[in-house]
Amino acid sequence: MEYILGMFSMGVFAITGVIATRHKNLDIFSVVLLGAITALGGGTIRDMILGNYPIYWVSDLWYLWVSVSVSFAAFFVIKALSNRYQLLLYLDALGVSLFSITAALKTTNLGYSPSIAVVMGIITAIFGGIIRDILSDSPCLLLSKELYATPVLVGLSIFVTLNHYWPNPALNVPLCVAMIFVMRSCAIFYKLELPKWFIARS
Amino acid sequence: MEYILGMFSMGVFAITGVIATRHKNLDIFSVVLLGAITALGGGTIRDMILGNYPIYWVSDLWYLWVSVSVSFAAFFVIKALSNRYQLLLYLDALGVSLFSITAALKTTNLGYSPSIAVVMGIITAIFGGIIRDILSDSPCLLLSKELYATPVLVGLSIFVTLNHYWPNPALNVPLCVAMIFVMRSCAIFYKLELPKWFIARS
Amino acid sequence: MEYILGMFSMGVFAITGVIATRHKNLDIFSVVLLGAITALGGGTIRDMILGNYPIYWVSDLWYLWVSVSVSFAAFFVIKALSNRYQLLLYLDALGVSLFSITAALKTTNLGYSPSIAVVMGIITAIFGGIIRDILSDSPCLLLSKELYATPVLVGLSIFVTLNHYWPNPALNVPLCVAMIFVMRSCAIFYKLELPKWFIARS
Repeated sequence: MEYILGMFSMGVFAITGVIATRHKNLDIFSVVLLGAITALGGGTIRDMILGNYPIYWVSDLWYLWVSVSVSFAAFFVIKALSNRYQLLLYLDALGVSLFSITAALKTTNLGYSPSIAVVMGIITAIFGGIIRDILSDSPCLLLSKELYATPVLVGLSIFVTLNHYWPNPALNVPLCVAMIFVMRSCAIFYKLELPKWFIARS
Repeated sequence: MEYILGMFSMGVFAITGVIATRHKNLDIFSVVLLGAITALGGGTIRDMILGNYPIYWVSDLWYLWVSVSVSFAAFFVIKALSNRYQLLLYLDALGVSLFSITAALKTTNLGYSPSIAVVMGIITAIFGGIIRDILSDSPCLLLSKELYATPVLVGLSIFVTLNHYWPNPALNVPLCVAMIFVMRSCAIFYKLELPKWFIARS
Repeated sequence: MEYILGMFSMGVFAITGVIATRHKNLDIFSVVLLGAITALGGGTIRDMILGNYPIYWVSDLWYLWVSVSVSFAAFFVIKALSNRYQLLLYLDALGVSLFSITAALKTTNLGYSPSIAVVMGIITAIFGGIIRDILSDSPCLLLSKELYATPVLVGLSIFVTLNHYWPNPALNVPLCVAMIFVMRSCAIFYKLELPKWFIARS
């Protein structure tokens, strides 16, 4: 179940990578490459920082095939998809929710402390998107004013606290994934920002 | 022979890194630093992803010295070189051909599967250039419309297939290097792009 | 003592990361994230290249807490700080001096050669800043005309030479840190550049 959800969120990330290239008139292989980097980038950086070798997609090639296949498919339906950018923001929110919580769970299971689990959850969830935005020369999502890092941080903090005092992944994982997804979705729908005194005005 | 070719292609990459800084009025050490990062970056990322420690230029310092020396020399002849940008595009094509095939061979020899070998060939060949373009604030070569990733992908696929059924590096390596180089050179000379239905129009 | 100085320089780096976001109207968590990445980025890349696991801030959480706390505090005084950009350039110079020399010492103590120590000193000192400038979409400090890499390189070369023939860290470390800091400070104060024939004109 978790494995399939992980694959699903990775596929969603690959699609956002493909969409990010829509104004560039790229050929298909560059598009697939960018989609795959977006899907695999965050987890790769997490595994490299933890020294957790072999990297997850090197030991299980299905991750590679899924991200490449989804990017490939997304390329051919790119016009339809770019008209559904709103839907995709929500799918991206779902991907971020799943990525952060499964990464935190994985890190905890490897024996690291809760703080490291939170950091790895953040890294996995947002670094793929940062690489995508840099490579495709798009405005960086992290630098937007809508809440992006905040829901992830709040959800992860609740997750590691729950997991520490009440280690029941079968319940905690879906709960916290849903929590992050709902918070981020509200941020997109209502264009939520933090209160003014939490924003750095120049 | 392979070792010398590897050094040669690395030197070519260093030169492209130096040329990328030509409009920036940088001092010599920044230029050498950028040249060296371009030359060593792709292989460093490959070794870090594979967990193949020590990184190749840490265990064999000659890679470091060659990339630094070539960048140093290129700095002083930068005007002459920037007038020969066409020649350099072809040298870059040669560098990419050599890098991708030797990386795929190295990855195969370490016991990884053909798919991982193809991925590592692509990473080694293009990530150095990506880092160069980001650091020097140039338009990213990967995002250009000319065929760039396609020749590398086709050549690598043929290489791992040949290598699997007919493991004779002495013949396969030069053959596939030449194949990628010729394809990429034609793409530069004839400004080849993929057929229209392979291009993502916005 | 060295440990405290290392923490101090990391805090200074975190502050420069926070200041780099001052024109972006970001919320607090994005700002703290960027500050922490700036503070921890250079050393993380160094440890990943050396394969020196666990990464320093994974094995000693105080690095993480200090960089997060300092970024947090800096966020609330960001207006006062941005008016003191000159002071901060000097603090950044101090951070770079400390980072480069302590990284070179650490690398030497791990048994690597002097050349690798110099390279790791450079990587630790400037990569955090490079990541900051890329993520915050600021002009890259490395690409500025003022001397930036040169003082670091000169100081590191003197340090590894001294350390090889006269291994007395208690004296060599403060001496070379001061040397880099003074050189870089002069570069900032007098707007020093290398002589014209050392600059790449296009």
